[in-house]
Amino acid sequence: MEVNYPVIVDVTLREGIADPEGATIERALPALGFNGVTHVRAGKSFRMNIDATDESSALAMASALAERLLSNPVIENATARSATKG
Amino acid sequence: MEVNYPVIVDVTLREGIADPEGATIERALPALGFNGVTHVRAGKSFRMNIDATDESSALAMASALAERLLSNPVIENATARSATKG
Repeated sequence: MEVNYPVIVDVTLREGIADPEGATIERALPALGFNGVTHVRAGKSFRMNIDATDESSALAMASALAERLLSNPVIENATARSATKG
Repeated sequence: MEVNYPVIVDVTLREGIADPEGATIERALPALGFNGVTHVRAGKSFRMNIDATDESSALAMASALAERLLSNPVIENATARSATKG
């Protein structure tokens, strides 16, 4: 029987890949009164519901579609996690 | 003493706000062989390190800067969480 699993895919830039969006945010923060914030990195996240027989196959499908459609594996890491925990 | 806390801010569209990026992904998936994926919603995430005296003040600062700079509170929700747990 297939159950509907809520899954979140996080897409982040790989270490060492330039992140101009994160750098711009980091430079803007002190002017807004936020000090002591460093290493800002921007990423994307995708929430979805996946029909699968168990949670591990839902996560495996999410990882596969993240590699195929949601991320550029050359510069980005994609990780799938359950949206029910945490 | 200030410690460096890794924090993640998740920015998601509010319920009911149209998400053309998520809808486009959802329509593209069956053609790539991924069936049974519904309710795709696209969002953003920001990882950063925050100097603070304790974790709760780091998270409070992250929530404040997320409201002020990282999100549009009219159409988006922003939540801050520790990057060390989970």
